[in-house]
Amino acid sequence: MIQIGVRLRKSCRFPWGWIIVILSIFVFWYPVTEGIAQNTQEVPAISEATQDCLGCHEDETPGIVADWRSSRHAIMSVSEALKKPIVSRRVSAISVPESLSSITVGCYECHGLNPEQHQDNFDHNDYKINTVVTPPDCSTCHPTEVKQFAGSKKANAIANLEQNPLFHQLTDTVTGQKDLENEILTFKGAAPMAKEKSCFACHGTHVTVKGLKTVQTEFDEVEVPDLTSWPNQGVGRHNPDGSFGACTACHPRHSFSIETARKPYTCAQCHLAPDVPAWEVFKESKHGNIFMSQSAKWNWTNVPWRPGEDFKTPTCSSCHNALLVNGAGNPIVERTHDFGSRLWVRIFGLPYTHAQPKEGGTFRIKNADGLPLPITFDGKPASSFLITEAEQQSRQQQMKKVCGSCHGTSWNNQFFSQMDRTNQEVDHIVKTATQLVQTAWKNKLADPSNPFDEELELMWVRHWLFYGSSARYGAAMSGPDYVGFKYGWWDLTETLVNLESLIKEKEQR
Amino acid sequence: MIQIGVRLRKSCRFPWGWIIVILSIFVFWYPVTEGIAQNTQEVPAISEATQDCLGCHEDETPGIVADWRSSRHAIMSVSEALKKPIVSRRVSAISVPESLSSITVGCYECHGLNPEQHQDNFDHNDYKINTVVTPPDCSTCHPTEVKQFAGSKKANAIANLEQNPLFHQLTDTVTGQKDLENEILTFKGAAPMAKEKSCFACHGTHVTVKGLKTVQTEFDEVEVPDLTSWPNQGVGRHNPDGSFGACTACHPRHSFSIETARKPYTCAQCHLAPDVPAWEVFKESKHGNIFMSQSAKWNWTNVPWRPGEDFKTPTCSSCHNALLVNGAGNPIVERTHDFGSRLWVRIFGLPYTHAQPKEGGTFRIKNADGLPLPITFDGKPASSFLITEAEQQSRQQQMKKVCGSCHGTSWNNQFFSQMDRTNQEVDHIVKTATQLVQTAWKNKLADPSNPFDEELELMWVRHWLFYGSSARYGAAMSGPDYVGFKYGWWDLTETLVNLESLIKEKEQR
Amino acid sequence: MIQIGVRLRKSCRFPWGWIIVILSIFVFWYPVTEGIAQNTQEVPAISEATQDCLGCHEDETPGIVADWRSSRHAIMSVSEALKKPIVSRRVSAISVPESLSSITVGCYECHGLNPEQHQDNFDHNDYKINTVVTPPDCSTCHPTEVKQFAGSKKANAIANLEQNPLFHQLTDTVTGQKDLENEILTFKGAAPMAKEKSCFACHGTHVTVKGLKTVQTEFDEVEVPDLTSWPNQGVGRHNPDGSFGACTACHPRHSFSIETARKPYTCAQCHLAPDVPAWEVFKESKHGNIFMSQSAKWNWTNVPWRPGEDFKTPTCSSCHNALLVNGAGNPIVERTHDFGSRLWVRIFGLPYTHAQPKEGGTFRIKNADGLPLPITFDGKPASSFLITEAEQQSRQQQMKKVCGSCHGTSWNNQFFSQMDRTNQEVDHIVKTATQLVQTAWKNKLADPSNPFDEELELMWVRHWLFYGSSARYGAAMSGPDYVGFKYGWWDLTETLVNLESLIKEKEQR
Repeated sequence: MIQIGVRLRKSCRFPWGWIIVILSIFVFWYPVTEGIAQNTQEVPAISEATQDCLGCHEDETPGIVADWRSSRHAIMSVSEALKKPIVSRRVSAISVPESLSSITVGCYECHGLNPEQHQDNFDHNDYKINTVVTPPDCSTCHPTEVKQFAGSKKANAIANLEQNPLFHQLTDTVTGQKDLENEILTFKGAAPMAKEKSCFACHGTHVTVKGLKTVQTEFDEVEVPDLTSWPNQGVGRHNPDGSFGACTACHPRHSFSIETARKPYTCAQCHLAPDVPAWEVFKESKHGNIFMSQSAKWNWTNVPWRPGEDFKTPTCSSCHNALLVNGAGNPIVERTHDFGSRLWVRIFGLPYTHAQPKEGGTFRIKNADGLPLPITFDGKPASSFLITEAEQQSRQQQMKKVCGSCHGTSWNNQFFSQMDRTNQEVDHIVKTATQLVQTAWKNKLADPSNPFDEELELMWVRHWLFYGSSARYGAAMSGPDYVGFKYGWWDLTETLVNLESLIKEKEQR
Repeated sequence: MIQIGVRLRKSCRFPWGWIIVILSIFVFWYPVTEGIAQNTQEVPAISEATQDCLGCHEDETPGIVADWRSSRHAIMSVSEALKKPIVSRRVSAISVPESLSSITVGCYECHGLNPEQHQDNFDHNDYKINTVVTPPDCSTCHPTEVKQFAGSKKANAIANLEQNPLFHQLTDTVTGQKDLENEILTFKGAAPMAKEKSCFACHGTHVTVKGLKTVQTEFDEVEVPDLTSWPNQGVGRHNPDGSFGACTACHPRHSFSIETARKPYTCAQCHLAPDVPAWEVFKESKHGNIFMSQSAKWNWTNVPWRPGEDFKTPTCSSCHNALLVNGAGNPIVERTHDFGSRLWVRIFGLPYTHAQPKEGGTFRIKNADGLPLPITFDGKPASSFLITEAEQQSRQQQMKKVCGSCHGTSWNNQFFSQMDRTNQEVDHIVKTATQLVQTAWKNKLADPSNPFDEELELMWVRHWLFYGSSARYGAAMSGPDYVGFKYGWWDLTETLVNLESLIKEKEQR
Repeated sequence: MIQIGVRLRKSCRFPWGWIIVILSIFVFWYPVTEGIAQNTQEVPAISEATQDCLGCHEDETPGIVADWRSSRHAIMSVSEALKKPIVSRRVSAISVPESLSSITVGCYECHGLNPEQHQDNFDHNDYKINTVVTPPDCSTCHPTEVKQFAGSKKANAIANLEQNPLFHQLTDTVTGQKDLENEILTFKGAAPMAKEKSCFACHGTHVTVKGLKTVQTEFDEVEVPDLTSWPNQGVGRHNPDGSFGACTACHPRHSFSIETARKPYTCAQCHLAPDVPAWEVFKESKHGNIFMSQSAKWNWTNVPWRPGEDFKTPTCSSCHNALLVNGAGNPIVERTHDFGSRLWVRIFGLPYTHAQPKEGGTFRIKNADGLPLPITFDGKPASSFLITEAEQQSRQQQMKKVCGSCHGTSWNNQFFSQMDRTNQEVDHIVKTATQLVQTAWKNKLADPSNPFDEELELMWVRHWLFYGSSARYGAAMSGPDYVGFKYGWWDLTETLVNLESLIKEKEQR
C-alpha cells in the first residue's frame, strides 16, 4: 500500500526538471524501446515512400505499423548506428547507400530493395513492392549475418530434407495420405498440406510466383503476386528472388526484436520434442529453472551481451550465437549466424552421433554404404564430409569458454566428458535396436524397401529419432527426465523390448 | 490499495509537484491496479452487509479478501462505471438496482442476490447468503455477457456429454472402474471421482443441495448447505439456482481480473492436449513465441482492446471473444461470450470436421445414421442442425478481420485455404482408419456394441480424437510439431499401421 | 508497505531531491535486490580472503561473481540479519562465530568452512578451499533448515533408490545397456551415464575424491581435487564431507535467491511427468492459471510470507514448506525443510497409496510379503513403518489451514474427501492390473524374477508409476487433463485393455 501525500506551497528554483526528465527517460523509455535509451539524437526522418505506405497501412494493418513503430528500425538511422563502437553495433555493414543512411528503416526501405531480383515485385500504388523480404535484402545492413547464415544447415534446410533420398522417403511416408484398397492399407504420396504445415513449416517451402491475382481488401481491389506455399516463415525458405532463408523465423515482424530472438521461446518453435527436445530439456534444466524464475529482470537487449551482468543463466542464443564479452569488455565468443558453428558433435536426427558436417548442405554426404548419411548403420563415419578431430576440439574449446563464465575448468571438463560418454551409451543401445530391425529385414519379417512404413520399423524410428535424441539432449543440457522416464532410457528400453517381442511373435505366426 | 492525496495551496512557479504526482501515478498505481488508473473519483463506500462479512473473513479467509480488495469490484461503483462511453464499459447493464449503484461490488452484493432462486441460500450470522454465485447473479450488471454465454456450447457442456449417448458411453468407459472377474476384465460403471475430477472438472458437475450440515471452522461451528459434487468450477456447471455456467471458470475469484481472463493460461486449463491441443499449438506458434517473449510489456486491461497498441500478437481472447478496435477507435469485432460464434468449422471432438452447430446444445443433433453426431461415419453432415454455407462465410470473414490487423488480404485468404485443405486431408486419413475399424466390426474381430473398449477401438479413438485434432489445430494456429511428429501425422500414420497390423494378426489367430 | 508523506510549506528549500532519491531507490533498487530495500545500514565489509578470491574470479568466472553480488549474502551481514524479529529472519542460528558475524557471506566464508571434514579440501593460492559446499557448511547460519532436511526423504534420496532392492532393480533395468547376443536381447548392468544423468541427477550421486589432478585453465595450471560423479546437484547428493544433500538443488548458485526457491519452476526440475507430474498438474490447475497470469506482480521475497497480500495463489512452497502468516502476523504454518512433513498420504512411486513413512529412509521398510515396500501387492500396509491415523489427521489439518487462507471449511473438507476417494478408485484399478500381471506370472506367460523387463511388465509399470500417479496428482491439485485424457484414466484403461489383450494373445500362441 502506498500513500503519497504532497503539498506544495511555494516554488522551486533548482532545476529538478532535469532529474525528473532523466528519471522519466529511464523509467518509461527504457522498457518500451528495449534499452535504446540514451539516444539524445533526434528520431530520424521517415522517407516519403514509407510515409505513403503508412498513410494507408496505419488503418489497413495497424498491428504491424504499431509493432514497427516500437522497433529500433523506426527510431535509429543507419548513420547513427554506425557511430557506435564496432562491438556494440547491430549492423555489420561498413556503409550503406546514401539514400538509406539518414532515415528510419521503414516499409519501403525493406520492401523496395532489389526489385529486379524479386519475381514477387509488383506495382502497388505507384511503388514497386516486394511481398517477401529476403536475406539478400537484409544484407544491405547486415551482410556478415547473412553470409554466415548462408553456409549453415539452416539455409540448406529444404535441400537437406528433399534431396536426401532417405529423409525424403521418411517425410513422404509420414505425411503421406493412406487409403484402404481391397482392405489393404495403401500409401499414397505426401498430402500437400500435411507436409507444408509440419516439416516444411520449419524447414521452409518453395515460395514462387504463379502470376498476379486480384484480391478484395476491406478498402479496395488490389492486384498482388500469386505465391505458392505462402504464407511460410520456415528458416530455410526458398524465396522469390532465388535466395534461401527467412530472417523473420527468429526476428519476427515487424519489430525484429533482439529480445525475442534471444529468448528461448523463439528457438523452441522448431527445436522441440519429440525429435529435437532442446527446448523441453532446457526448460527442465537448472539453467531453465533460473531463466523461468528470474529472466524478467535481465537485460535482453544489450549489445554486446555480458554474462552475469545482463543475464544470469545461458539461453539458446548465449551458447549458440550471441557475442558475449567479459567484465573488461573483451569478447568471450564472437557472434555467429551459422548456428552449428560452435558445435562439434551432432546428437539428433540420425541413429548415431557423429562429428558435425563440414558444410551446411548435408544432402551431399555419401557414406561407405552409399547412403546419404554421415555414418553407416554399423557406425562407420563418412569422415571426408565431417569436421576433423582438431576442429572438433577447437569448437568444444569455444563452448567451454561460454560455460567458463560461471563454471570452473574441472567442472567443464568433466561435464563434457559425461556428454561424450552418454553419446556412446546411447549409440550402443540404438545399434542393438538397429541390429534387431536388420535381422527382421534379413529374415523377411519386414520389407526394407521402405524402412519407415511397418509397425516394427516405426518402433525403430521412435527408438533413435525420438528417444535416442532425448537421452542425448537430456545429458548435454542437463534435463534428467528426458534421459530417464520421459522419452529417455525408459522408452529406449521399452521400444527395444517391444521390438523383440513383436519380432518373436511374427516368427511364431 | 493506494491513496494519493494531494493538496496544493499556492504554487511552485513551475508545477514540478504535478509532474511527480503524474510520475507516481504511472509508476506505482498503474501496475498494481491493472491500469485502472485515472479515476479521480473517490473509492465508493462498502455496504454495511459487506462490512460485516469482512469483519470476520478478513481473518477467516484473508486471501480472498485481499484478492477482492485488489479488484475493480472493490474500487469502482456501477454508477461510476456507467459514466464511461459504451465502448469502454465492462458492465453491459443500462442500469442496476439503486441499492447496488453507488457502492463497491462486495461480498454481499454478489452472494446475497436472488436468494429465492438459490437452494443453497442459508442463514449466516443474520444474513441470507448463497454459497454459489451464478450467471443469473452476475447478469445483474453483465446481462449481455450472460445472455450470449447461455446459448453457447459451453453453457451446454454437461448435457452435451451426458445426453449424447455416444459421448456418454465414451466417458463412462474411460472413467469406468475395471475388475478382474474369473480372470476376465470386466467394465463397471464410471468411478465417480474419476469422472468428476476429469471430464466434469471442465464440463461442470451437478451442484445440488442435500440439506444443511454443521462444519467446525477455526473459530466456530457453522451450519452450511451440504452440496453435491462441490467444489467445482466447470464452465457448464449446473448450479443450485437451476442455472448453468460458472463465470469463475475464466474470471477466477475474487479479483475477477480481465487480465487473467485474457491470458491464454486461462483457456489452457481445458483446451489442451491431447484432445484439444489449442494451448500447446498456440504456445509453439509464432504468435505464442512473441506472446511468451514480449507480453509482460502489453496492456492487458484496456477496454476496448487495440491490436498493435495494447498487444502485439493475438491470444485466445483476441481472436475468439474480445472487443477489438482499430486506431480510429472503431470496432474491428464486437465482444462475445458465445465463444464459438466467430468460428465456422469444428475441428475437434469428432472424427470429421463439420460446420458449426446452430445451437449450443449439440446433444439434440441427429444424423442420417440416427446417431447424435453432426456427421455420419461416411462423412454425411446433419446439415439441418448446422450453420449454413452463408453463415460459415460470414463468420470466416469476421475472423479475417481480426487477422487483418496485421496480415494482408492475400496472406489471410491463402492461410484459410490451407486450413480448409488440411481439414480435408485429415478427414481423409481418419476415414481410412474408420473403414478399418468398421471392417473389423463386420468381420467379428471386434464388438461394436461398445465402440470404445477394445484394443483396436482405443487405437482408433486415439487416431481421430487425439491425432486428428492435433493435425487440424496445428494447421489452424500454426504449430508445426502438432501437425507432424507430436500427435500429428506421425501418430496418424503409426496408429493406422498398427491398427492394420493388429487386425491382420487377429485374422491369422 | 510504503508511505511517502511529503508536505511542502515554503519553497523548494524543501529537499525534493530526497523524494526523487527515495523514488529511485524504489524503482531501481527494489527489483534488483529482491526487495531488500530499506536497509539504511552500510553494506558490510568483504573479508580479505574473499577479496582475494574475487581478485581472480571477477575475470575467471564473472557470471557467478555478478550473481553473488546481487544476492543477500553480498549485502547483509549475519549480525544485521539477527537484529530482525525472529519471524522475519532467514537465518536460524542464534549466533555465529565472530569471524563471520559482521562481514558479507562471501566466497571464502562458505568454501572455507570445516576444512578438516572435507576430503575435497585443497590448497588454492594459499587458501584451503572446499570444492563442494555442503549442508553442514550451510548449517553454520541455517541450522534448523539443515536439521529438518536431514530427516527427510530428500536427504535419503540415494539410499531409497540404491538400498531398496526392488527400486534398484527397476533403475538398473531401465538404465541398463542392452545387447543382442545370438539374436536374443540381453540386459547388461546399468550404463553409468544413463543412470547418473537420469535417476541420480535428481536423487544425487556419490561425490568422492579420487585424488588430485591438474587442469589447464584460461590463465594457469591448477591442481584441484579429482571428484567422482561430478558435477551433480541432486537433492540427496553424497558429499565429500560424508554428508547428504545439496542446498543448491533449490537455492541455485550463487545468488541463493529465495524467489527462485519459492517459484514452482525449481520444484519442477524433479517433480514432473510422467512419474511425478506435480508441476504439470499445478500448471494446468486454477492455481497455476493464476500464477502464470499474475505472479509477476507478487512479492516473492517477503519473510514471513502473507497469502493474499504477497501472493494470490499457492505455489509448491506455500503449501509444502514456507512460513505463512495471516493479516495479524500470526503463523498459519511454520517453515519446514522436511518437505513431506505436511503430507499424510503418499500418492506416487508405488502401485498403491499409503500413509507417509515415519522416517525419511524408506529403504528400511519391510512389508508382510517381506518386500521393501510400504504396502503389499494385495494392499496390506506395513503399518509399523508408517505414520499413525492420528498423525495423518494432524497433518491434513495443517494443510487445511493453508487452504483455509482462501477456501472455506466446507470447501476444504469436501475437497480432501474427494482426494481420498480418488486414491481409493485409482488403487482399485491398479489392483486389477496387478492381478492380471500376477496371473501371467503364475501361468508362466512372464518371468517374475525381474518384474520390469518384459513387454507386459513394462505396461504394468506404466499403469501405476505413470498413469496411477497422474490420476491421483490430478485430483489432489486439480488438473483435470491428468485425471482424464493425459496420462490419467484414459491411459489406465488403455494399458489395462492392452495388457489383457496381450496376455490372451500369449495364451493362444
